[in-house]
Amino acid sequence: MSGEWSFESDTMLERIDDGVWTSEISDSWNIGVNPNGGYLSAFVLRAMKEVSDHQDPVSMTTHYLRPGSAGEPCQVRVDVVRRGRSLTTLRGSLVQDGRPRLEMLAALADLSAPATGDTELSVSPPTMPPPEECVTRSGSDQGVELPISQRIETRLHPDYGRGGQAGAPEMLGWIRFTDDRPPDTAATALFADAFPPSLFGLLGFIGWVPTIELTVHIRRRPSPGWMLGSFQTNDLHHSRMIESGMLWDSGGQLVAQARQLGMLLVR
Amino acid sequence: MSGEWSFESDTMLERIDDGVWTSEISDSWNIGVNPNGGYLSAFVLRAMKEVSDHQDPVSMTTHYLRPGSAGEPCQVRVDVVRRGRSLTTLRGSLVQDGRPRLEMLAALADLSAPATGDTELSVSPPTMPPPEECVTRSGSDQGVELPISQRIETRLHPDYGRGGQAGAPEMLGWIRFTDDRPPDTAATALFADAFPPSLFGLLGFIGWVPTIELTVHIRRRPSPGWMLGSFQTNDLHHSRMIESGMLWDSGGQLVAQARQLGMLLVR
Repeated sequence: MSGEWSFESDTMLERIDDGVWTSEISDSWNIGVNPNGGYLSAFVLRAMKEVSDHQDPVSMTTHYLRPGSAGEPCQVRVDVVRRGRSLTTLRGSLVQDGRPRLEMLAALADLSAPATGDTELSVSPPTMPPPEECVTRSGSDQGVELPISQRIETRLHPDYGRGGQAGAPEMLGWIRFTDDRPPDTAATALFADAFPPSLFGLLGFIGWVPTIELTVHIRRRPSPGWMLGSFQTNDLHHSRMIESGMLWDSGGQLVAQARQLGMLLVR
Repeated sequence: MSGEWSFESDTMLERIDDGVWTSEISDSWNIGVNPNGGYLSAFVLRAMKEVSDHQDPVSMTTHYLRPGSAGEPCQVRVDVVRRGRSLTTLRGSLVQDGRPRLEMLAALADLSAPATGDTELSVSPPTMPPPEECVTRSGSDQGVELPISQRIETRLHPDYGRGGQAGAPEMLGWIRFTDDRPPDTAATALFADAFPPSLFGLLGFIGWVPTIELTVHIRRRPSPGWMLGSFQTNDLHHSRMIESGMLWDSGGQLVAQARQLGMLLVR
């Protein structure tokens, strides 16, 4: 399947040594002039999956150290921290020009097993108009160009699509690949970092909101189709905000929880 | 001040090389036979602070790989990933008998600056009876011994103090050091991992609930006095749960947000 979809062909890895790979960063996943953070993390997650017995990132923390350089080569490095029966823990980094652009720490597990039947808890998705009644994300409204819309299609709730329109720091929308690649847990981690910032719903024209650190917990393997994301910012101080979110698959199953520490640049 | 309080004297570090320290794990911070995870992380955070220009952990992710061994020596290793003007990013580990017990990735900043006066968002604390009307945490009720109560005092909301009494996966309580050490941002990170698991409010007798990964975001420096913690589990699947929490200082200021991936062992 590798190479068939843009998510695969734009994150191809060439192994050059134990735990070291090279690749090139495409400019088709940019937010403004910077590659989307979730896209950069996808290279490292892919390398992690190559050396791990487990394939689903149940916990994945990324520290974004410097923006990536689109159209340039990169190096990916991964170390296994611990191999366990039910979890593999790994750390990794993405480097360009000798400078690390991101540092990751993740635990991979196997989410293919059916639920055990004991106590289960989950969260239902919010009420949402279907994608065809939602609005396409507008880069000009947010104050940033969106080359990433070549690769990822986002449809925002009609009440949240215009800057400041929601009157609250909330974002709600549908997401999928433009080439209809079915989502998996790696795509879910990508989508957790691909929505407009929820502060856009309160403040409007805020440009690019860099992520300092993002932790995604993948909870279940997604069904094919549109994924629904809901994000809120409840804490903004010293221009650093905490944004929390959830993602549901087309069957209404909670597939991820995410939280990031982000930086508001434009006021 | 180092050595004056038990939190300092039980996390003393001896530097033996660049980025390498030794210490000994006290058995006074145990949950059952295992040292509390927040206590183990405190050694690594302390080492990080020794080599960082910044002192407040605005983002701190810990993967717990194996339980620590109380009463035994340990080695702490820290590397600086990036030194920035406003953030220092570091990774670290705690090792015993040559086996890593935890792996950390953190960003430290300076939270001493006053708020900028631009848009600020925060969350108010829940209504809570004063500590003297709350109940002392009972280890026998949770199904685990609590040597840690020598060091940390916890007073639970009277509706949440007995197992399963809350009827919901929620936990609400006050927390402080038994020796009246004033809280700082390192103590706040410790306290984020020192409450009974919120599943206790739903399921009662669940024993020790090991943390796979915990991310704490420290948001503001705490004022002296009791700290208030509120925790909820909204997602339990394959015996792994997501617990989210917030901590407020005695002045009602939101000082931390935390989220962990934990493992339910006893059903």
